[in-house]
Amino acid sequence: MSIAQDSIHTLSIADLTRALELGELSPEAVTRAFLDRIEGLNKELLAFVSWDAQRALAAARAAGPGRLHGIPYAVKDVIDTADYPTEYGSPIYKGFQPHLDAACVEMARGNGAVLLGKVATGEFATQTPSAARNPLRPTHTPGGSSSGSAAAVAAGMVPFAFGTQTTGSIVRPAVYCGVAGYKPTFGFFPAAGLKLLSPSQDTIGLIARSVDDIAAAAMGLHGQATVQPARGRFRICLLQSRQWDYLRAGMAEAIEEYAKELEWAGHEVVHLRMPEALELAAVMQPRLFMYEARRTLGNELRDSPEKLSKRLQARMAEGLTVSFDEYMAMRQQVRGASNVLHGIFDEFDLILYPAAAGEADEGLDAAGDPRFGALWSLLHAPSLSFPIAEGPTGLPLGIQFIARPAHDTQLLAMARSLPQYYPGRRPDEA
Amino acid sequence: MSIAQDSIHTLSIADLTRALELGELSPEAVTRAFLDRIEGLNKELLAFVSWDAQRALAAARAAGPGRLHGIPYAVKDVIDTADYPTEYGSPIYKGFQPHLDAACVEMARGNGAVLLGKVATGEFATQTPSAARNPLRPTHTPGGSSSGSAAAVAAGMVPFAFGTQTTGSIVRPAVYCGVAGYKPTFGFFPAAGLKLLSPSQDTIGLIARSVDDIAAAAMGLHGQATVQPARGRFRICLLQSRQWDYLRAGMAEAIEEYAKELEWAGHEVVHLRMPEALELAAVMQPRLFMYEARRTLGNELRDSPEKLSKRLQARMAEGLTVSFDEYMAMRQQVRGASNVLHGIFDEFDLILYPAAAGEADEGLDAAGDPRFGALWSLLHAPSLSFPIAEGPTGLPLGIQFIARPAHDTQLLAMARSLPQYYPGRRPDEA
Repeated sequence: MSIAQDSIHTLSIADLTRALELGELSPEAVTRAFLDRIEGLNKELLAFVSWDAQRALAAARAAGPGRLHGIPYAVKDVIDTADYPTEYGSPIYKGFQPHLDAACVEMARGNGAVLLGKVATGEFATQTPSAARNPLRPTHTPGGSSSGSAAAVAAGMVPFAFGTQTTGSIVRPAVYCGVAGYKPTFGFFPAAGLKLLSPSQDTIGLIARSVDDIAAAAMGLHGQATVQPARGRFRICLLQSRQWDYLRAGMAEAIEEYAKELEWAGHEVVHLRMPEALELAAVMQPRLFMYEARRTLGNELRDSPEKLSKRLQARMAEGLTVSFDEYMAMRQQVRGASNVLHGIFDEFDLILYPAAAGEADEGLDAAGDPRFGALWSLLHAPSLSFPIAEGPTGLPLGIQFIARPAHDTQLLAMARSLPQYYPGRRPDEA
Repeated sequence: MSIAQDSIHTLSIADLTRALELGELSPEAVTRAFLDRIEGLNKELLAFVSWDAQRALAAARAAGPGRLHGIPYAVKDVIDTADYPTEYGSPIYKGFQPHLDAACVEMARGNGAVLLGKVATGEFATQTPSAARNPLRPTHTPGGSSSGSAAAVAAGMVPFAFGTQTTGSIVRPAVYCGVAGYKPTFGFFPAAGLKLLSPSQDTIGLIARSVDDIAAAAMGLHGQATVQPARGRFRICLLQSRQWDYLRAGMAEAIEEYAKELEWAGHEVVHLRMPEALELAAVMQPRLFMYEARRTLGNELRDSPEKLSKRLQARMAEGLTVSFDEYMAMRQQVRGASNVLHGIFDEFDLILYPAAAGEADEGLDAAGDPRFGALWSLLHAPSLSFPIAEGPTGLPLGIQFIARPAHDTQLLAMARSLPQYYPGRRPDEA
């Protein structure tokens, strides 16, 4: 088989791996193909904030063996890299060069993956947007804070990218850009080398073109073969909450349609009202976030307050209204909410929930509403998002499936067998 | 009242604060007194690895207002400081200078505390010992990995020090050196700026001369007044486990004696056999540790394996025997064990447990058995250790009290009212 250079970037990770194994492609040719996409598209999309073609090609030639041998990837710029500056989306860190790769970057290298460079992040992984644009419609936000990760993957600049999520910063940008997002169980990728924000929630995860690619990358980074799609009838809980009041045109209908489709596919779908303990935990989450962020970013707040965005300054000021007693009470509340969540998973395999309020917003001065990710970030449950339909203006609408904490392989296996709709690709390409 | 310069280092944090408030002491005089101790004793004890008298005195003069105004402290050298090199106890990082203070250091500064310098740590906070010696008997280990923190506090070089615990690295050195150790609920101090080892367990905590000082420091670092001693009858569970087989001469007897004393003081003490889920979790903990440490220290393992100690190399090699599937199964197992622990706290206020196998070991080539801390580190429960008796050779024997996760203030309040025996001090001085 001969593979045209300009179609390499459309291949799944499994197909790239097969072509690399068969010698139909070299790691260098693969890297070259993705670099071409970056060089062609990044001026408009601003997904990458730093990359170096020569360094990437050298890394491709030097790529070791492993499950991800020769597969290019990118790293959200709140994660340290020894080969590229790491600016955390903040002018405070202009040109800052960490001395060490983050543990997840080392895991990628150790399994043969090829680092192409760093992708844009919201300021310190908060909702203050980066300059990145949505490849599906560049007047629209790609979401945040893993904006560059989502835009780069959606534009075919890289097969997968590391992102991070503290509230909804992976699952939302992924669906805004029409690709798949994976916020694993807390700590699935060790946080060493991640610039922390709200350490009880900060989770490193992945964005990739499809759930299949997510599974290949997530398992490959742990030196494992991908998980096979699960068979059988899944017990799925469609969880309706007060957050649904924030859903926008078409979203509630799309999720109901999708639920029907799941039933037609033989799965059980039960509508459940979100238990009050979880409703309250979702409301509490931003206050826990602010208490922690105010301390975690204490240096920057002291030394360079004027270099923080107005938006972040306002969050930090709000953080002052959260007392120590409230913080400790929230930490206790998390346990109770977590018990309730585990109770749901005693009866169901998966929770089905919106990944965002609706389509990506127009404009680049805001990154969209992260709230639909808050609860699963807070409770450390793995979550996988992908598009399920086209919204009113033609941009994707997306959902997330949530599984019991530490049941990531089960989540990946089940999600692989569920219907997904990626814009511009036929369902059988998903 | 006039305070002799050579008795300042013997004052409690509350007494220092009172003298500072009344103007009987200046922050500079306090700092000078503790610097005198370092200068006099560190050549023998090697507790501090870097300090700078001029910088410390300047920090004392510049100390801001706050609950810990003018109180000197030290930082374990696995925690980043912008003013002092941070070598993580490893030759790989000789002279390494972080660009930023860790969040906990910023919290200390923000509440007026005065940084004196960095104290010794086991290699990357593992059990490979530092050069520090036990002030109670310098031929003996101070324990590890927070060896410098314990030795510095016990020698009166500093009123409190940050330590870290992944298995038993705070609670054990504290009692080996005859002082108090506090491993809070996971995340009580944010981990930003901590060199991670096993991120699902790594916890920043404190070592201080007494439980009273621990409470003053722990609350003061959060901008809070200390917690008052709790009154009333506590329901205490003396948990006996298979780990007790490792107890050494005098320890089991000492803990039984102490339990009787608690009963005489009006508390309820119930002997309970450790539930099997907890026994198994304690056995599992080192394997979870190794899986994570192997990834977290991935850079060092790749770039400078020859600069790792033989002991750490061996642990890393063992880490290879832990598969991804085993790791995920262990993460699930943690949840079950955590449920069992919470069940105990439905019936009891506190768990009473050995803090170490016995007295500090002779020699400096090993740091003692950390296993008695493993379960509480793994399950994120706050734990407070202090000496309760003199052992067969005259060194202290110590216990730890454990409370329900996120119930740190309750633990501190109860512990303040419980009997403690610090070597060289009469009980009423404790």
